[in-house]
Amino acid sequence: MTHVIDVVTAGEGLIVFDPAHTGPLRHVHTFTKRVGGAEVNVATGLARLGLRVGFLGRVGQDEFGEQVSSFLRGEGVDVTGLRRDPGANTGMYVKEWSAPEQLTVRFYRDDCAGSRFTPEDVDLDLVRRARLLHLTGISVALSDSSAAAVEAMADAAEEAGVPLSFDVNIRRRLLRDRDPSKLLGALAARADVLFLSDAEAEVLTGSSVPEAVAEYRSTIRASVVVVHTEAGAYAVHEGGVVLADGHRVRVVDPVGAGDAFAAGFLASRLGGRSLRRCLESANAAGACAVTVPGDAESAPTAEAVARLLDGADHVER
Amino acid sequence: MTHVIDVVTAGEGLIVFDPAHTGPLRHVHTFTKRVGGAEVNVATGLARLGLRVGFLGRVGQDEFGEQVSSFLRGEGVDVTGLRRDPGANTGMYVKEWSAPEQLTVRFYRDDCAGSRFTPEDVDLDLVRRARLLHLTGISVALSDSSAAAVEAMADAAEEAGVPLSFDVNIRRRLLRDRDPSKLLGALAARADVLFLSDAEAEVLTGSSVPEAVAEYRSTIRASVVVVHTEAGAYAVHEGGVVLADGHRVRVVDPVGAGDAFAAGFLASRLGGRSLRRCLESANAAGACAVTVPGDAESAPTAEAVARLLDGADHVER
Amino acid sequence: MTHVIDVVTAGEGLIVFDPAHTGPLRHVHTFTKRVGGAEVNVATGLARLGLRVGFLGRVGQDEFGEQVSSFLRGEGVDVTGLRRDPGANTGMYVKEWSAPEQLTVRFYRDDCAGSRFTPEDVDLDLVRRARLLHLTGISVALSDSSAAAVEAMADAAEEAGVPLSFDVNIRRRLLRDRDPSKLLGALAARADVLFLSDAEAEVLTGSSVPEAVAEYRSTIRASVVVVHTEAGAYAVHEGGVVLADGHRVRVVDPVGAGDAFAAGFLASRLGGRSLRRCLESANAAGACAVTVPGDAESAPTAEAVARLLDGADHVER
Amino acid sequence: MTHVIDVVTAGEGLIVFDPAHTGPLRHVHTFTKRVGGAEVNVATGLARLGLRVGFLGRVGQDEFGEQVSSFLRGEGVDVTGLRRDPGANTGMYVKEWSAPEQLTVRFYRDDCAGSRFTPEDVDLDLVRRARLLHLTGISVALSDSSAAAVEAMADAAEEAGVPLSFDVNIRRRLLRDRDPSKLLGALAARADVLFLSDAEAEVLTGSSVPEAVAEYRSTIRASVVVVHTEAGAYAVHEGGVVLADGHRVRVVDPVGAGDAFAAGFLASRLGGRSLRRCLESANAAGACAVTVPGDAESAPTAEAVARLLDGADHVER
Amino acid sequence: MTHVIDVVTAGEGLIVFDPAHTGPLRHVHTFTKRVGGAEVNVATGLARLGLRVGFLGRVGQDEFGEQVSSFLRGEGVDVTGLRRDPGANTGMYVKEWSAPEQLTVRFYRDDCAGSRFTPEDVDLDLVRRARLLHLTGISVALSDSSAAAVEAMADAAEEAGVPLSFDVNIRRRLLRDRDPSKLLGALAARADVLFLSDAEAEVLTGSSVPEAVAEYRSTIRASVVVVHTEAGAYAVHEGGVVLADGHRVRVVDPVGAGDAFAAGFLASRLGGRSLRRCLESANAAGACAVTVPGDAESAPTAEAVARLLDGADHVER
Amino acid sequence: MTHVIDVVTAGEGLIVFDPAHTGPLRHVHTFTKRVGGAEVNVATGLARLGLRVGFLGRVGQDEFGEQVSSFLRGEGVDVTGLRRDPGANTGMYVKEWSAPEQLTVRFYRDDCAGSRFTPEDVDLDLVRRARLLHLTGISVALSDSSAAAVEAMADAAEEAGVPLSFDVNIRRRLLRDRDPSKLLGALAARADVLFLSDAEAEVLTGSSVPEAVAEYRSTIRASVVVVHTEAGAYAVHEGGVVLADGHRVRVVDPVGAGDAFAAGFLASRLGGRSLRRCLESANAAGACAVTVPGDAESAPTAEAVARLLDGADHVER
Repeated sequence: MTHVIDVVTAGEGLIVFDPAHTGPLRHVHTFTKRVGGAEVNVATGLARLGLRVGFLGRVGQDEFGEQVSSFLRGEGVDVTGLRRDPGANTGMYVKEWSAPEQLTVRFYRDDCAGSRFTPEDVDLDLVRRARLLHLTGISVALSDSSAAAVEAMADAAEEAGVPLSFDVNIRRRLLRDRDPSKLLGALAARADVLFLSDAEAEVLTGSSVPEAVAEYRSTIRASVVVVHTEAGAYAVHEGGVVLADGHRVRVVDPVGAGDAFAAGFLASRLGGRSLRRCLESANAAGACAVTVPGDAESAPTAEAVARLLDGADHVER
Repeated sequence: MTHVIDVVTAGEGLIVFDPAHTGPLRHVHTFTKRVGGAEVNVATGLARLGLRVGFLGRVGQDEFGEQVSSFLRGEGVDVTGLRRDPGANTGMYVKEWSAPEQLTVRFYRDDCAGSRFTPEDVDLDLVRRARLLHLTGISVALSDSSAAAVEAMADAAEEAGVPLSFDVNIRRRLLRDRDPSKLLGALAARADVLFLSDAEAEVLTGSSVPEAVAEYRSTIRASVVVVHTEAGAYAVHEGGVVLADGHRVRVVDPVGAGDAFAAGFLASRLGGRSLRRCLESANAAGACAVTVPGDAESAPTAEAVARLLDGADHVER
Repeated sequence: MTHVIDVVTAGEGLIVFDPAHTGPLRHVHTFTKRVGGAEVNVATGLARLGLRVGFLGRVGQDEFGEQVSSFLRGEGVDVTGLRRDPGANTGMYVKEWSAPEQLTVRFYRDDCAGSRFTPEDVDLDLVRRARLLHLTGISVALSDSSAAAVEAMADAAEEAGVPLSFDVNIRRRLLRDRDPSKLLGALAARADVLFLSDAEAEVLTGSSVPEAVAEYRSTIRASVVVVHTEAGAYAVHEGGVVLADGHRVRVVDPVGAGDAFAAGFLASRLGGRSLRRCLESANAAGACAVTVPGDAESAPTAEAVARLLDGADHVER
Repeated sequence: MTHVIDVVTAGEGLIVFDPAHTGPLRHVHTFTKRVGGAEVNVATGLARLGLRVGFLGRVGQDEFGEQVSSFLRGEGVDVTGLRRDPGANTGMYVKEWSAPEQLTVRFYRDDCAGSRFTPEDVDLDLVRRARLLHLTGISVALSDSSAAAVEAMADAAEEAGVPLSFDVNIRRRLLRDRDPSKLLGALAARADVLFLSDAEAEVLTGSSVPEAVAEYRSTIRASVVVVHTEAGAYAVHEGGVVLADGHRVRVVDPVGAGDAFAAGFLASRLGGRSLRRCLESANAAGACAVTVPGDAESAPTAEAVARLLDGADHVER
Repeated sequence: MTHVIDVVTAGEGLIVFDPAHTGPLRHVHTFTKRVGGAEVNVATGLARLGLRVGFLGRVGQDEFGEQVSSFLRGEGVDVTGLRRDPGANTGMYVKEWSAPEQLTVRFYRDDCAGSRFTPEDVDLDLVRRARLLHLTGISVALSDSSAAAVEAMADAAEEAGVPLSFDVNIRRRLLRDRDPSKLLGALAARADVLFLSDAEAEVLTGSSVPEAVAEYRSTIRASVVVVHTEAGAYAVHEGGVVLADGHRVRVVDPVGAGDAFAAGFLASRLGGRSLRRCLESANAAGACAVTVPGDAESAPTAEAVARLLDGADHVER
Repeated sequence: MTHVIDVVTAGEGLIVFDPAHTGPLRHVHTFTKRVGGAEVNVATGLARLGLRVGFLGRVGQDEFGEQVSSFLRGEGVDVTGLRRDPGANTGMYVKEWSAPEQLTVRFYRDDCAGSRFTPEDVDLDLVRRARLLHLTGISVALSDSSAAAVEAMADAAEEAGVPLSFDVNIRRRLLRDRDPSKLLGALAARADVLFLSDAEAEVLTGSSVPEAVAEYRSTIRASVVVVHTEAGAYAVHEGGVVLADGHRVRVVDPVGAGDAFAAGFLASRLGGRSLRRCLESANAAGACAVTVPGDAESAPTAEAVARLLDGADHVER
């Protein structure tokens, strides 16, 4: 069977309002509009690393939805499965930098189009013809209908033998009082590749040490569990643990780092690279992403990742 | 009895994101954050014209709520009655200029703090001690609880003999399928001063000609109905109709014109000026407001209104 | 035969540096980067009016080429036929506003990728499967290889029975000392739809009055010659002359008006509308385009054109 | 006796023009307007930390004076004692960043309203009803009339038993040839809380080591002398010396750090906290302030100080 | 005798802070820094029209003085006679646009370097070797020492047979209570070319009609008195009155119009053109200047003036 | 013989478009226009350090050429030898920051005016009357005619006994396939002062260690070879090697560092300072330059260099 697409992902595309400088927003008068949403970031990252990507979801029938759609399409992502909802706004969020790198966010996504994503919106056929399906816990936590859509995709992928990649992405504000293990554990257990931060590893496994993650992995389906930490990343697989150090770079905007990390890992893995190389690519992609403002905009190209891995000169002429 | 305050008004304070230039928002990358909401605009306008104003309402316990609050307080408006809601965002809206002066707007106010304004939030004592209560149809249309709060204020004012000023402000998107006459007609009928655009006059009276408005006025409590049109404004009172021509100015941003108009009228009226002078002040205040970007920011000072009325030189040195 | 695409066009995509304000550039320190090129503008305009469009050409293997490509792809234009040239820069030009609406431009396009467009770059199969081929005199004047590519496309279209639309677009700087009639006349004579400004009509026909244009039309293949003037536009066809008045709007940036005009005309024509309606749509599209900054960015959507044709309110809420 | 206000302070409110980037100002074309003045910064800082603050002084009857006034009022500071002078401009100063963190300033304050502050302007009754009076050496150095006003406030506070906080704030340009010890020593000797930088400690005591400061303290009235240094801060009191390390943060704008430090200290002290906790709060407030551009704008809220003291995560979601 | 220079002028160079948009400055957060001062504007205008110009005066030994100096030198003006004062700031002023074209200004020039300009600063030799000396009433009103410097230059010019051009430029704020006729009348009476606005004509002659100006001219030395009005300009000379209509252009910033007008007139006059042509050039230069933001920056080049006089196309390509 | 000028240099002045933030240019919409070109940077640096400098070269007869010219003239550089070419654009280049300090550049200089610089353009008399001629390898690599102009200047200097300073400045893109040693070695061998980066030292001498450079120096005419490295700089002369450590500063823009370094060295050398002091000045000038955005704009003044050498306070008041 031929694959028309490498990776299908799905989620809520968001507009981001990013203030011009640090400090309480009452004193910030100029904002830059950008594009975000975890799965949008991953889709962009994968496309920039050369993969064919399809994005499913629902945005408003408004200019912000048009922005999300044209952004992804411009990056070469297939958005034929991105629905436009005339009855709801495209979601947005506002960043606030209390200091450099010190970020808080405020969402305007309740009842927005992304939360109205339903199983009926999903082009399951596209899912079945992909080489990989990538989902995140955000879409599960967003709304019941979105969770159902995610479930339908996971089911379709499983039936068609398409492996699932799952980034737990625990977001306390979306979860409200719900237990993340209960809400997200089932999908985590179905994934072939599972992404966790060390804090998330602690939530799911009770500890962020590799041994605990390895123990947890042995109880689920995942062939590899990838954990990113402050210092770098490690991957737990049947054969043991692989570690890779991170890069020291000047941080401009940390948002999107985890998504670029996932994109870097998946692109290498689908390219048949070793687990170590997958981790190195993931670390480099994450490091590149934090040196550029924006969420999806900061997803690095293959050239940028290669440049960091190869340690190129500071100034090229 | 001494009045501690001249005018009390109440409503939803909003944050406004205003794009840097005309055109579809997908191509606008920079936005200016400003402050809006019809009653916020009126409160600012009245304060700048020298009146003591109190503002009631509910905003989020967030920096946007802080912005609305510190903006009004900075202008000298009493915001001790502005509640902060830790459980909801401050509402916002995004402007889109398809061409100069050609505006569409998109609101993110559903379930925001303003819609959660309730009768319990209202400091009725402040209402009773004012010389005038100003309300608008927006707060009625916003939510049931907000409508109830408005009703409670109108009742308290009536009992205390405080005259009511009411700007119908029909907003189709807020009304959804509800009939504006049914929803807003009762409050309009209780007002002492009633503000209408000519289009709104047509909705309420079936026609925008002064005769129809005079006929309508005779059926309600209002001592004066003020109608603003493209060409200027007219006022219908027991003694007949008073007209005043508008000003020709270069329009920068039309939003807030009607609110500045109302503020100009009310400030003159509370100052005991003639109906003609009230209309002239209203026209001048509205004209000033459209020459400055912003909603509340563009509310003119007494000096600016006087300068336009007096026809000062173009460049002062 | 089924058409995979409505219109194919080809040309040089350009990056535009637009100064932040009027005046000599030595005193302008901030520039906005935008996207231009006559055929890029037409392609964008057609896509926004709902047509399936393919764009052929050559840009650099650089971020500016990526910008042109992702911009068009984002708008839904098929850019599979847009070549990337690793050996040349993407062309660019700088605007200078000596006063509002008073524009001069300076090109950096010599030896850039667009001039290296050759017949070998052209996907003739795409041309043959379109409903219309749109070309302009700019691509003819740009370089010999570009002219040859244009020739090849016109030939292929003719053989396949695909009608040709040709916008003469006389650019003195590109022509240098060459005679526009000689250089562009042959292609003009092969077009089914021919677009001229009144100044260009004078160059080609010796006069800009409809009679002279009608006389000229009778000597060429064109079923319709469309002339846009300061006051509006007229079309000369076998049955006579059709006129349509233009719109009075506040001009923000006149660049792209002619391209939006052509897009408006062609979209209506391919939609089977009357010649009068085609002219009205063209006029409205051109009028919309000048109210928005940018070349391709200002191409109006179907909604914007409809709004102008229908005379909607100034402020919608 | 009940206190209507926690802290009263007095001084010159200034408008600040802050260049958009580093380098000689001849090449900087864009400036951001902000609000400053040491006592304005302290007043803002105290208000954001939850105290009731009154600000006395004199600004111009111009929009810059309006800016200072509405800024403070917006932050909740009582400005009923801030005089408006129709005969003088509000003072301003221009920043120049020769490199990041490397700042020089140029004042336009001669003969401005702040220098015309006189004892007659002072609402001594407000001073007498405060829990603390905070003054700085800047107001002493500014002009004879301002020094007299400061003297009058200190006298009134002393008589009413209101403790005095004094930040020496030696400004060479304001002092011109005057000896800082002579000019400022008398007031320093009357303070209950005295703030010094280590450089200022050296000027007043001949050395910046704690021993010298302790020796100096024993000769004056101060119950505590607080010295802030590069590494942190220490406080000398009857019982000895208390030290507290500073925080390592990415500096955006160092101006206002000392004022936020003083506000942090005083807020804790008036809250009855231990001297160690006062120093920690002062250090944290100063550290927060330097991560945000602006003088008064960068004064941290209680939440920001608490977040730094508690070591919260880098990114909250 | 050979002239090393065409025109010498002298005055105060100023830095201008121009707000980003209309409205009360409390709501404007971004300013553009520019260069102004009536004589700086004239010097720039003359240099751009091809004349050799020398500028005398005094600015601070600061970056703003460096800005004035490098600006003029960059435009080719000889600034060897521009003194740098280490003891005073360069003067500045802030614009406030209450509406488009509706300007008020606030100066920070008291005790600044320009007011400390003295006869000792003046290179009288340069004055004597010029073809024309241009002075304005601003330098007379600025300070006693500046008035003395102006007097010294006028004397030196008279002795050397260098004609004097004088632009009365009555500035009420600088004059304070002084009578403009008394303060400026003597110098006006010594001028060979005298520039007046119609309002200034009324002040000096009692009426702004040409007859009154002609009557006045007959009592003074001037060979020509040039009066600019809203509608254009007229010149009164021995042979009668010459009139020239103004241009209708979209006004961006009216400041500098009168100075560009004077520069246009003087450049034509020194070029030996007819009085009518001088007026036409003056009108065109003034019209160009108002289409560009800035005071000195908006001074038009010879090409811009020629383009307006010749009525070139709107868009050149 | 008296020298009318201290240093003459020659090269291509460029306009620089600098993006507002890091990241792929497709997502950067705002650019700042600045001035660059290695020799322009050196000329600016020397002038700011107090030397009389002449600049030779060719720019377009356009506003960008005007910008280069007025920039240099404004800084006091003699540009009477800077030709204006009506037949070619002024060259420009675009910066792209893939991360902070991580720069790539793209030039639009082919066939621009700078490449058309010829021996006929050169005012050899000015060269002969200078105290030093400074050239760089960029002008050699730029075009054959530019290389010939450089050759003619070196010849004239040699005949007149004017020492030559040569900065090799190997630019791979300009060199294309040419061998830098062959192209630039001859001129390097004729220099009295030769500037190299350590990478360039390796290209010319086979190694970047001081011993290899000393060996190389013994084979050429240079009295001193100056090598700048990451850690600082060293100079090889007859008497041995002198080293000087660099400064640790926060880098804003590394471009222009090498040019400021050369200017710092040459200004000290022409001032008769010791070789160690020359290196220290060079290091300080280079360090200052990287803390300010821009190429020529960031050239430090004598005060800035002195401040860094003297270790002044962080904030001056």
